[in-house]
Amino acid sequence: MSLKLYLDNVRRIRPTVHCITSAVSANDCANALIACGARGIMSDQAEDAVDITAHCGGLNISIGTLYAQSIKAMFEAGDRAGELGRPILLDPLGAGTSALRTKTAHRLAEDLPLTVIRGNLKEIKILASGSGSAHAVPVIDDDHITKENLASVSAFIKQFAEASQCVVAVSGETDIISDGNRLAVVQSGDPMMSDIAGCGSMVSAVTTAFVIANPEDIFMAVTAAFTACGVCGEIAKNHLRPEEGNASFRNRLIDAIYHLNGEILDKNARYEIL
Amino acid sequence: MSLKLYLDNVRRIRPTVHCITSAVSANDCANALIACGARGIMSDQAEDAVDITAHCGGLNISIGTLYAQSIKAMFEAGDRAGELGRPILLDPLGAGTSALRTKTAHRLAEDLPLTVIRGNLKEIKILASGSGSAHAVPVIDDDHITKENLASVSAFIKQFAEASQCVVAVSGETDIISDGNRLAVVQSGDPMMSDIAGCGSMVSAVTTAFVIANPEDIFMAVTAAFTACGVCGEIAKNHLRPEEGNASFRNRLIDAIYHLNGEILDKNARYEIL
Amino acid sequence: MSLKLYLDNVRRIRPTVHCITSAVSANDCANALIACGARGIMSDQAEDAVDITAHCGGLNISIGTLYAQSIKAMFEAGDRAGELGRPILLDPLGAGTSALRTKTAHRLAEDLPLTVIRGNLKEIKILASGSGSAHAVPVIDDDHITKENLASVSAFIKQFAEASQCVVAVSGETDIISDGNRLAVVQSGDPMMSDIAGCGSMVSAVTTAFVIANPEDIFMAVTAAFTACGVCGEIAKNHLRPEEGNASFRNRLIDAIYHLNGEILDKNARYEIL
Repeated sequence: MSLKLYLDNVRRIRPTVHCITSAVSANDCANALIACGARGIMSDQAEDAVDITAHCGGLNISIGTLYAQSIKAMFEAGDRAGELGRPILLDPLGAGTSALRTKTAHRLAEDLPLTVIRGNLKEIKILASGSGSAHAVPVIDDDHITKENLASVSAFIKQFAEASQCVVAVSGETDIISDGNRLAVVQSGDPMMSDIAGCGSMVSAVTTAFVIANPEDIFMAVTAAFTACGVCGEIAKNHLRPEEGNASFRNRLIDAIYHLNGEILDKNARYEIL
Repeated sequence: MSLKLYLDNVRRIRPTVHCITSAVSANDCANALIACGARGIMSDQAEDAVDITAHCGGLNISIGTLYAQSIKAMFEAGDRAGELGRPILLDPLGAGTSALRTKTAHRLAEDLPLTVIRGNLKEIKILASGSGSAHAVPVIDDDHITKENLASVSAFIKQFAEASQCVVAVSGETDIISDGNRLAVVQSGDPMMSDIAGCGSMVSAVTTAFVIANPEDIFMAVTAAFTACGVCGEIAKNHLRPEEGNASFRNRLIDAIYHLNGEILDKNARYEIL
Repeated sequence: MSLKLYLDNVRRIRPTVHCITSAVSANDCANALIACGARGIMSDQAEDAVDITAHCGGLNISIGTLYAQSIKAMFEAGDRAGELGRPILLDPLGAGTSALRTKTAHRLAEDLPLTVIRGNLKEIKILASGSGSAHAVPVIDDDHITKENLASVSAFIKQFAEASQCVVAVSGETDIISDGNRLAVVQSGDPMMSDIAGCGSMVSAVTTAFVIANPEDIFMAVTAAFTACGVCGEIAKNHLRPEEGNASFRNRLIDAIYHLNGEILDKNARYEIL
């Protein structure tokens, strides 16, 4: 199944993404969005944010740096996006490491009409445990997706996606994506992606751009975004010189997104739809 | 006309620039300032900012990330800079995309004794339309400078500079700078400069450094700064390897500023004073 | 004396560092921490920060960007770290450039049970002059460590470390570290390290990771961290291509930390314990 169309749509439509994201990775998110053909506008002050949301094609919320003002902006911008029918992606970054992050993630998931939830397995488990579907959370001891727990994690993600009525996407060595019905398993990617700060935030931002540009199939848009980022991680690793480490890998990852096209994506994509 | 002197003055005087700038590009601005021979101090909390302004040679205000506290800091630091006779550059980043940004840009332009206004054509048009010279804003439908509208845009910029009594500088594929009397058209630059987040903010920061170091001719200082950045954009593009994209371009742009000298600048400068 | 053990402990223990650091260099700090084998969590909002501190192995406080909320977070997270017996590093970044920074640095040094103080000579002098040991601050006119003032600066640092009962570490062309008893003089490093924004903040973050992983000898942990960063500065310079400047140097510095191992460290280390 070709993913070319989904990338082509991003490059053609050039979506603008309102990012309320971690200050740590805001610059990388902005450059990654430009690299894939989109644009980011960062705004996390409520008075400003509601206008920016209206100006943009969709909203990317990451709870990586939480302030009274940014939390307010998340809810108000989210409400505005909902009114306007714009897609909203929630990245529950760090849920489980502080009460404020866990509580905020739960409240955002309850109050906002989310389109996509993207995080690592630990964050998604924390998020699911606080929702109405709490009873459905299976016992998955590991916080990483492994060959051994792939089936149980897949079942959990599918169930959580169905319960929360949005696409749930879990990043890991293997990525799992579900809309409650279909399930995608993405193998594309390189372990060095976990060695750069804010890689997850970049994937969230890029995924939001893919979702805005492909409203007809959110699940495939998310799958294409994850596969595209994974393929670019592999390309970045191939271009890395022996003396280069994680700082250069970050640049080469964004550079690879910049040069990615549908042919390269389809040729290198490693994923399956179950 | 040689621009060497203006760069040499920056490298000799090593100005310190107080930046109240977007969190997204603060790191790039800081490294671009060091690259051109200056230093940046980022401070956007009013109590801190008024002292930092007094400590620095000039003030660079960008409205890229607006909070109650940073807006307060802009006005108080601006007042302090005015009292001390220090130059102030205003970058109305995102004016027109939210009511808060538009209003804040207008209020800053009204209240502060600005030395330079730098933005893209859309932002400058928004800024001009809210000022006392509003009646003078011509109908320029396009938000980009083109061959076709170059004459009308130039006339508008000259008029706005005269009315606002400062140097107005518009970034685009072609840059236009005026002090209300003279007009500079800068062709130096590379299209990839618009593919990196915060390029405009970097140009604003570097321009403030040039203005501090060249108080005897602000117009030429701005023209030299724009041309220097444009020449460095071309050098960065020349150094870009086939697999490199916008992330590496950002690094190569700052690297080029780091290695720029008066001879390279004069040899590659493409601009004219009208 | 081998420094290998201290680096090996960081790579083995993989400490998590709570950073309340400058927004300008937060991303570089996060990537530098990953490069040395640690992880950083950035959080400067009090409600969030106290939980994050409890979640992490130690606390790195830099006063580079001060807000009412981040100042509150520094004190509350510092108190929490103290209660939990976690090490705290204070970087009095910019002390002396604004009354708020100077006052905040003094208050943090008085109120928190600091483990390490790291800054440049000017900042450390400002910090010492406000403490109870003020009468002991010698007249050192220069703000840089030179061959001429090395003896008097060393005596001052040793005295200040003894009075403040923590390890005091001064960055400069030559670094000086003391626990009030021992004194380390580190020559490793490259002048280009002062040409990148936030290099001191990165050294502070990496030093905190070394301290967490080596609780049995804080003084040697700090000495190893400083030497490691210095050696990596030299490696970065060696890998720098002719056209590359400070932006690429930043990446190559972090890349060098990523590839550093005990053998490279010991082979290149230039330091002595007095």
